[in-house]
Amino acid sequence: MSAVVATAAIARAGDAAVGAAPDIEDAKPRADIVLLGVGTVGRAVLTRLSALADVADLRLRALANTRTRLQSADAIDPVAAIERLRDGEAADLQRSIAVLGAQDAVPRVVVDATASADVAACHALWLRQGLHVVTANKLAIGGVAANERAVRAAARAGATVYGDSATVGAGLPLLRSVRALRAGGDRILSLAGVVSGSLGWLFATFDGTRPFSACLREAHARGFTEPDARADLSGEDMRRKLLILVRAAGFALEPDDVTVESLVPEALRDRAAAPTDADWERCDEPLQRRLDSARRHGRVLRPVIRFDDHGRARAGLETLDRDDPLAQSRGCDNRVAIRSTRYATRPLLIEGPGAGAEVTAAALLDDVLSIAASAPKHRSA
Amino acid sequence: MSAVVATAAIARAGDAAVGAAPDIEDAKPRADIVLLGVGTVGRAVLTRLSALADVADLRLRALANTRTRLQSADAIDPVAAIERLRDGEAADLQRSIAVLGAQDAVPRVVVDATASADVAACHALWLRQGLHVVTANKLAIGGVAANERAVRAAARAGATVYGDSATVGAGLPLLRSVRALRAGGDRILSLAGVVSGSLGWLFATFDGTRPFSACLREAHARGFTEPDARADLSGEDMRRKLLILVRAAGFALEPDDVTVESLVPEALRDRAAAPTDADWERCDEPLQRRLDSARRHGRVLRPVIRFDDHGRARAGLETLDRDDPLAQSRGCDNRVAIRSTRYATRPLLIEGPGAGAEVTAAALLDDVLSIAASAPKHRSA
Repeated sequence: MSAVVATAAIARAGDAAVGAAPDIEDAKPRADIVLLGVGTVGRAVLTRLSALADVADLRLRALANTRTRLQSADAIDPVAAIERLRDGEAADLQRSIAVLGAQDAVPRVVVDATASADVAACHALWLRQGLHVVTANKLAIGGVAANERAVRAAARAGATVYGDSATVGAGLPLLRSVRALRAGGDRILSLAGVVSGSLGWLFATFDGTRPFSACLREAHARGFTEPDARADLSGEDMRRKLLILVRAAGFALEPDDVTVESLVPEALRDRAAAPTDADWERCDEPLQRRLDSARRHGRVLRPVIRFDDHGRARAGLETLDRDDPLAQSRGCDNRVAIRSTRYATRPLLIEGPGAGAEVTAAALLDDVLSIAASAPKHRSA
Repeated sequence: MSAVVATAAIARAGDAAVGAAPDIEDAKPRADIVLLGVGTVGRAVLTRLSALADVADLRLRALANTRTRLQSADAIDPVAAIERLRDGEAADLQRSIAVLGAQDAVPRVVVDATASADVAACHALWLRQGLHVVTANKLAIGGVAANERAVRAAARAGATVYGDSATVGAGLPLLRSVRALRAGGDRILSLAGVVSGSLGWLFATFDGTRPFSACLREAHARGFTEPDARADLSGEDMRRKLLILVRAAGFALEPDDVTVESLVPEALRDRAAAPTDADWERCDEPLQRRLDSARRHGRVLRPVIRFDDHGRARAGLETLDRDDPLAQSRGCDNRVAIRSTRYATRPLLIEGPGAGAEVTAAALLDDVLSIAASAPKHRSA
C-alpha cells in the first residue's frame, strides 16, 4: 500500500508545486551576481548556482579571487567559471563590481565568499551605491560596532539588503529567529551556544584516548580548521559570531565587551608563521588536565558563547554537565539556546550543521534568492 | 567591570533600537483586528495585544465567542474586553467580521483562536474578500487537501496573507524553516518530530511509577489536554499537524495517507460523552506492557510523527533508543528534525515550547505584526 500512497502523494505534490508557483512565468526571481572568493565556499556557491537554474534566473556576471577576475555582459556558466578564471584578467575589485552597471530592473548582488578585510571594508560603500551584499565574511559586522552601524545605515540609505545568514551557523535559522522574536515584540533575555564548527568537533572528539594535538591534526586534515588553526583556537571567530548574534538581538556590544578565552599558548600568539603540528603539542598537557578534571565531576568540555541582557558576554571553553542542552552537540553541529520573554522558562533550541562549504553556500544563495524574490515588488513600486 | 559593561551595553542597545526603527514615526505597523474565541488562547492574545501597544498600532475592533460579541468603530481596550463581552450582543459571526469594513489603508485581520469547524469553513471566504486570516485553528488546512488548496487559492485571489504559524509548534520556527529551505531550492527529504505538547508531556512523565491514567489526570488538571482527552489520544491532532507541515514541504497528502495510531480504547471511541477518569484506566495495562517492553530494550516511548519524500506518513507511539534525537524532548516541548538536500546527513533540529496559551498567542500576534509591517509597502504600491 505504501507504494500506492507514495505515487499518489508525489503526483499531488507536483500539483501543489504548480499551485504554489507565481502566476506569470517571467516572475521567476532574477538577480545579477558578482562572486568574490573561489575557495571551498565560493566553489560550492558555483555548484549550487548551477543547480538553482530551474528555480531562479541568477546570472553570474563576474567572478574574482585575489589574483584574477572574469567578467561578462552576459551570464557566465558557473560550471566552467573556475577553469576560465585561470585565464582571467588581473584582479581589480572595483572593476569586477562595475560590471553590474546600473540596471534598476534586476537586483544586483555582491556575494562575498572571502575572509578578506579589504572586501569587508567595501560592503557599506556598495550598499549605499544600490548593490545588495550577501556575505559569509564576518569582518564588517562582527568587529567594532561603528562598522556594523555603518553597514546598516548604508543599507537604509541605498534601500538595499545586507544578507548575513551565512555569517553565523551557516544559515541555520539563528539570526532569523532572533529577529523574528524581536519583530513579535519579544525581548531577548539570553543567548548561549556552540557556534564554532571546528571547536565543536574538536571537543566532541577529544576524549582523552589521544592527545588534543592529534585531534587538531585530524580536524585540520578534514578541512574543519583554518589553515592557521590559531584563527579557531584564539576564540576570535566565536567573538565575531557572538557580536553578530547579540547585535541582531538589539544590543550594541563592542569587541572588548566580550571576555574571550584563547586556547592558543602564549608563546604561539604573536608568531608570524602558523604554528606547526609540534607547536600545538604545548596544548596537550593543560587541556588533558582540564578534561580529566571535568570528567571527575561527570562533566564535559565544550566551546561556548554566552550573552545575557545585563550585557555579560563571554566566549570560551566551559565545563558542562552532561545533561546540559549545550553538552549534547555533536560533530560539527552548532547548537544555540535562545531565551526571550516568550521563551523565558524553556529556551528555543536550534541545532544542525553550522559549518562546511555546502551549507554556507546554500545560506549565501538563500539570501540572494530572497533578494531576487522580493524584487518584482520593488519594480512595480 | 561587568556592571560597567552592562550599563554601557544597554545604553547602546537603546541607540541600536532607535537606529533600527522606521524613519517616520507614523510608520508604526497598523492593523485592525477581529478576535474570534476567548478561551485560554484568546485571553492570552488580549493580554499580549495590550503589551504590544508600544510596538504597533493594533486596534481590536471586535471580539466574539460562541455566545456573544462586542464590536466598535474605535479600538476596544483589550484589558477590559472580556468583562465587556459578558454584556455583549448575541453572537453573529458575519456581523462581527463586517465591523472591519473596507478601509484599504489599514490591513484587516481576522484572528481565529477557536477550535471551531464553522469558523475554519469561513477562512477562504474572508481571504478572498480582502481580509487577512491568522489562525491557531488547524481545521482549514489540516484536513482534506482540497480545503487547504481552497485557502491558498483564496489568499492569492484576495492578495491576502494566511498566517498559520500558530497551527504547528505554537510559532516555533518550524513551518517558517521548512518554507525557507524550499525557497532556497532545497527539497525536503523527511520530517520527524514530537509535535503534541500534551502527548509529549504524558510520555515524558509516564515512567511506570504510577498508572498512565494518573498521568493523564494530572495532564488534564494542568490544562495540557483538551477537555475531552480523546482529541489528544486519538492522534487526530498529530495527523493535522503532520499534514500542515508536509504541505508546507510541498507534498499534498490526504488525511487517509497518514497512518495514525489511536491510543483511545475501542470501547471509548464512539461514545458521545467524554470518557471519565475511570474509563481511561482501560489504557493502563496495555500501555504499562509497552513501557515495560521498551525499557527491557533500554528504550523509551514517544509520540512521533514521521514523513519521508516517498509519501510515507505516520503518527503514533514509537519505541525509541534513548540516544535518538526525538527521545530527548522534555515536558511539553516540541522537537522536530528536518532533513533536506542541504541537511541530508545531519538534520536541522528545532526544539522548544510548542504548546500553551502564551506561546500560541505570541505566534498569532507574530503573524498579525508581520502583516501590519508589510502593509505600508502595499499602500505605496
